[in-house]
Amino acid sequence: MIKILIDCFGGDHSPQAPVEGALAALAKNPDLYIILCGDEEILRKELAGKTYDASRVEIVHAPEVIGCNEKPTDVVRLKRNSSMMKGIILLRDRDDIAAMVSTGSTGALVTGALVRLGRIPGVIRPAFCPILPTMDGGIVGICDSGANVEVTSAHLRQFAIMSSLYMENVYGVKNPRVALLNVGKEAEKGDDVRREAYGLLQETEGLNFVGNMESRDLLSGSYDVVVADGFSGNVLVKTTEGTALELLKKLKGEIFSRTLYKLGALLMKKMFKDLKEFMNYQNYGGSVLLGTSKVVVKGHGSSKAVAVEKCIEQAYKMEVSQLSGKIETEIAKYEHYID
Amino acid sequence: MIKILIDCFGGDHSPQAPVEGALAALAKNPDLYIILCGDEEILRKELAGKTYDASRVEIVHAPEVIGCNEKPTDVVRLKRNSSMMKGIILLRDRDDIAAMVSTGSTGALVTGALVRLGRIPGVIRPAFCPILPTMDGGIVGICDSGANVEVTSAHLRQFAIMSSLYMENVYGVKNPRVALLNVGKEAEKGDDVRREAYGLLQETEGLNFVGNMESRDLLSGSYDVVVADGFSGNVLVKTTEGTALELLKKLKGEIFSRTLYKLGALLMKKMFKDLKEFMNYQNYGGSVLLGTSKVVVKGHGSSKAVAVEKCIEQAYKMEVSQLSGKIETEIAKYEHYID
Repeated sequence: MIKILIDCFGGDHSPQAPVEGALAALAKNPDLYIILCGDEEILRKELAGKTYDASRVEIVHAPEVIGCNEKPTDVVRLKRNSSMMKGIILLRDRDDIAAMVSTGSTGALVTGALVRLGRIPGVIRPAFCPILPTMDGGIVGICDSGANVEVTSAHLRQFAIMSSLYMENVYGVKNPRVALLNVGKEAEKGDDVRREAYGLLQETEGLNFVGNMESRDLLSGSYDVVVADGFSGNVLVKTTEGTALELLKKLKGEIFSRTLYKLGALLMKKMFKDLKEFMNYQNYGGSVLLGTSKVVVKGHGSSKAVAVEKCIEQAYKMEVSQLSGKIETEIAKYEHYID
Repeated sequence: MIKILIDCFGGDHSPQAPVEGALAALAKNPDLYIILCGDEEILRKELAGKTYDASRVEIVHAPEVIGCNEKPTDVVRLKRNSSMMKGIILLRDRDDIAAMVSTGSTGALVTGALVRLGRIPGVIRPAFCPILPTMDGGIVGICDSGANVEVTSAHLRQFAIMSSLYMENVYGVKNPRVALLNVGKEAEKGDDVRREAYGLLQETEGLNFVGNMESRDLLSGSYDVVVADGFSGNVLVKTTEGTALELLKKLKGEIFSRTLYKLGALLMKKMFKDLKEFMNYQNYGGSVLLGTSKVVVKGHGSSKAVAVEKCIEQAYKMEVSQLSGKIETEIAKYEHYID
């Protein structure tokens, strides 16, 4: 039985989306067991009238609520009875729980997981790895994208090993093409950390390192994973999302400015719908934290039930494929490089 | 008389675009004098039959050609008779030349200018400042975006002072809103460099520092200048350009996939044309190098005559507004912070 804990509060559609997503995943996977974490009374109401295998559902009461503007460090210290923090502590303390899924605050979740959970043996720093859709219909992972604003070349190599194994085991990407985010393609580009990392990545066995990537090529479909420090990785992901959203907004504004355009758009209705769906990041699953002792998956705050279900699916695959063990084995080969 | 040197080779439409752009600027500004740098025979042919005030045009012969894949450092060392390197050396050596405009290789131009030109007194590091259009019809500058991959907080403060003065003097932006690129809005976000810079920017008199900016808000129109290290600034600019281009390409591909869509797009033809024009970065002028002793403006490689003319206009405004002197005065106030 694989036990996954769901933080049922903190997202825009909580607790409905987490509960419904969890029950959908439960129905599909006979060996899945879910632990719903949050205010018990509200959760019982949400479950009322729904059909599910109650022997595989557990509720953990966590009544505290995290405010929008609370600092992650304060949440970790002070909100131990929130669904998120209680979830993280349970994940740490209960051997039977394999993973956790949350659609709450990214900052609080990453900080909480880094502070409260242990790491996979050998991992220096866990890293955050979201997924974006590429223009050829594929996906690309970005690791790290915010957990570590400062890194060494040894960290970057570990991010590469972890995210490559992740893409292979969870998304079935064969021999993932791993690139290093840099300001130019040539090996000597960037700062010392980047130049050193380039060398380390080249000599890492079993890693399909394809060289530096310039950020303008992220969506080209030429890469499966991009390795970055958490600062520029964060800029990469958020700029992509921001530019896409601003452009769609602009396009919409233009269309509604003239009747002729509205008419034209009417003919293209399905196309625009498909495009919007294509750019809807929650279709591609959540962002995972790689390198912590237990699996943590972060879904978009706006996740609906189907997106939460995808996140649970991701966590499930990470556990079933024994990703943590594989990461430990590969990382161990280069332990002598740890700073 | 304001003398501006034009590197007439290296761009996609050279030498036609640089020459025509220069003559257009010449016709509009009676006190402008232009120096065309490149292969003299080819330039004379390009000028043949055109009407212009020959007393304000000079040709400097520079026959060497820079190849596409040449390393910037090699170009600087070995291609002294290329139009770009000869231009930079002339700019340095001739007191009468105020500025230079080039549409050639960014890497070679920035490296050449940093190596060969002096700096404005007090400036620790010159920085590269491109301009992007925002969704509300305005513009935003990004400084630095590639000249310095590693920075200190003192550098970031200087970038802020220089780029704020630039936006004010060249684009007429009153009291420019200056933001610091970071992974979150809160003052304590990011690494030590960012946290220190936040404090320095807050206490810089005459600077309208509005706090940290998350990269997803770049195009929102809420900021006039964004200050960044050259690595993440480069990621910010190239990701924005890359995402916009990839999306337009995707849109075009979808439209051509079905007759109905093609029909719809026909009705929206003007809208798509306007959108493409709006996103055409060369409409917004070139990227300037701020902090070098003489003005250097880099136009897009794909610049046509009108874009080159805009670059010359920028250089002209920088000189007329005595931007360098203003930068020197403001920078001097904080000289004791220099590392």
